Amino acid sequence: MKVVASAPGKITLYGEHAVVYGEPALVASIDKRVYVTCIPRSDGRFRISALNLHVPGVIVTYSRDGEIILETDYGRVLSALSYINEGLRITSEYIGERRGADIIVESSMPVGAGLGTSAAVTVATIAAYAKALGYDLKREEIAKLAWETEKKVQGIASPMDTSISTFGGVMYIRYSGSNVHMERVKIGSEIPLVIGYVEREAKTKDLVQRVYSLKQKYPHIVEAIIKTIGSIVEEARKALYEGDLVRAGELMNINHGLLDALGVSTKKLNELVYAARAMGALGSKLSGAGGGGSMIALVLRERVQDVSSAIRILGGKVIDTAIGGKGLVYESVERS
Amino acid sequence: MKVVASAPGKITLYGEHAVVYGEPALVASIDKRVYVTCIPRSDGRFRISALNLHVPGVIVTYSRDGEIILETDYGRVLSALSYINEGLRITSEYIGERRGADIIVESSMPVGAGLGTSAAVTVATIAAYAKALGYDLKREEIAKLAWETEKKVQGIASPMDTSISTFGGVMYIRYSGSNVHMERVKIGSEIPLVIGYVEREAKTKDLVQRVYSLKQKYPHIVEAIIKTIGSIVEEARKALYEGDLVRAGELMNINHGLLDALGVSTKKLNELVYAARAMGALGSKLSGAGGGGSMIALVLRERVQDVSSAIRILGGKVIDTAIGGKGLVYESVERS
Repeated sequence: MKVVASAPGKITLYGEHAVVYGEPALVASIDKRVYVTCIPRSDGRFRISALNLHVPGVIVTYSRDGEIILETDYGRVLSALSYINEGLRITSEYIGERRGADIIVESSMPVGAGLGTSAAVTVATIAAYAKALGYDLKREEIAKLAWETEKKVQGIASPMDTSISTFGGVMYIRYSGSNVHMERVKIGSEIPLVIGYVEREAKTKDLVQRVYSLKQKYPHIVEAIIKTIGSIVEEARKALYEGDLVRAGELMNINHGLLDALGVSTKKLNELVYAARAMGALGSKLSGAGGGGSMIALVLRERVQDVSSAIRILGGKVIDTAIGGKGLVYESVERS
Repeated sequence: MKVVASAPGKITLYGEHAVVYGEPALVASIDKRVYVTCIPRSDGRFRISALNLHVPGVIVTYSRDGEIILETDYGRVLSALSYINEGLRITSEYIGERRGADIIVESSMPVGAGLGTSAAVTVATIAAYAKALGYDLKREEIAKLAWETEKKVQGIASPMDTSISTFGGVMYIRYSGSNVHMERVKIGSEIPLVIGYVEREAKTKDLVQRVYSLKQKYPHIVEAIIKTIGSIVEEARKALYEGDLVRAGELMNINHGLLDALGVSTKKLNELVYAARAMGALGSKLSGAGGGGSMIALVLRERVQDVSSAIRILGGKVIDTAIGGKGLVYESVERS
């Protein structure tokens, strides 16, 4: 069976990092997606090609016994491959069957911009692989396997990215241990966002670790910051429900400062965040793990051009996207 | 009696803004001072000259009935004059006597850089005026009158600047209502600081008001941030006592993020703060009310040159100063 599954990227509106410690977060899917095609093979080998991850292509072949054949080698793409690799392993274990497959990954998102590409790759890979082998997993199961994959690859991970990529929309999410609580969030008005991104200087894993270390060193202070981020999320949820974009913007600004306090912002991200405010954004913040990557700005339509230009002038890339795209979609299922 | 009194400027090491709401702060006097000469007049008039406030000079004459004669008019210096004016009024009221005087103000500090120039001017003016009229006020009385002056001029004010300017040294300070608790802080090692400053974009009064408004709007969130700043101060006090500059630096970074969350940082201040870190500072933060003004960086001696250069390249001015200068000093008292 040849299956094509797609899953969207996401942005975190509020609550990144704190969500790792049991606080809620608000996340939204975007209309940029990762497409994974899975065609089972009879020789037990996996052949992964990720030709279009917005970095030069890479083709990797590895066999059941772990032998890896790299046809092209680019570090940044390799990190995405570890999610595919682990996702396939965990899915095989879950369904109790392991078969080789050709996996073709295509993406309309930049890699490493904090848009949850790895989660989208993982979700789409797991869904496509299981379906191709004839297993109809529930969305909840796929989201759970994808979270386990991220935890395995990153050490610590929130289920946020994998959940939003599986279910789509705008979500209020909170988890403790392996319990995930997710609610679809009602929005009182459109959320006009500009996303800017710059090169990542640090990996998600390292940034999560950095916050963890800071928390070990200054437990009282960092726990208070984390809890306060949780309060921001609750307030922001109300503001978005009421369509009060001024409050939603102010809460982004506060959230950004707290992320800066956690040590996950960078000089460059701060520049983009402050430039957006100077050009009339209602609020702005880094989005995602930080250390470079994405920032978002809440911007009324008439200021979008100015804010976008300011981000570009400072060397950031602007992503034009709509919020709340569909979650996991089986694009095609062909019986072979 | 002709009296010359001098009082030092200060920098806030940790805890600005939160101190307004009952949290502790750590402040240190610097070796830049304001000198105020007071010579009583027999005609009931006040003649104030502030020729050296690091901005073009201004001479103002005003009489007992409120008539003001401006010989030169520069807005920035005028705000300093309101402290002198109010300080003279409050002191007159306190001692129960009002006489005219020539007041000559000289400063070795830039105005409006967050170095507590207004407090130093206020303290030195009150001390010189009371002494010139023959009243020996205690330091505690002078500090209290100076605080009242700042409250009158600014609306809300912490007693921090006026206390440190009166007493000098490095102080742990906390107040609730009109009760001020101050302790001299023991320091385990020298505190090697670089101070950078840029032009102020907003007044202290407005910045204090901005935090107050934010707190009215998001009480739960802002109170948590304020309390967390208090925790940082307690940790920093321990770190300084132990001479642990690495922790002291990290705590500056966290404190800066929380100030950013309170909305008192600026694009430019963030640039200087991040540039200092990039050049090897152990930590850095805005210092004082924000909205421009000063930032401080904790820098080991071998990196001082690099950090200073980075601040200058970005358009900041660097102040070369030692921490813990003397408080209020009567430089000369001449019986006329």
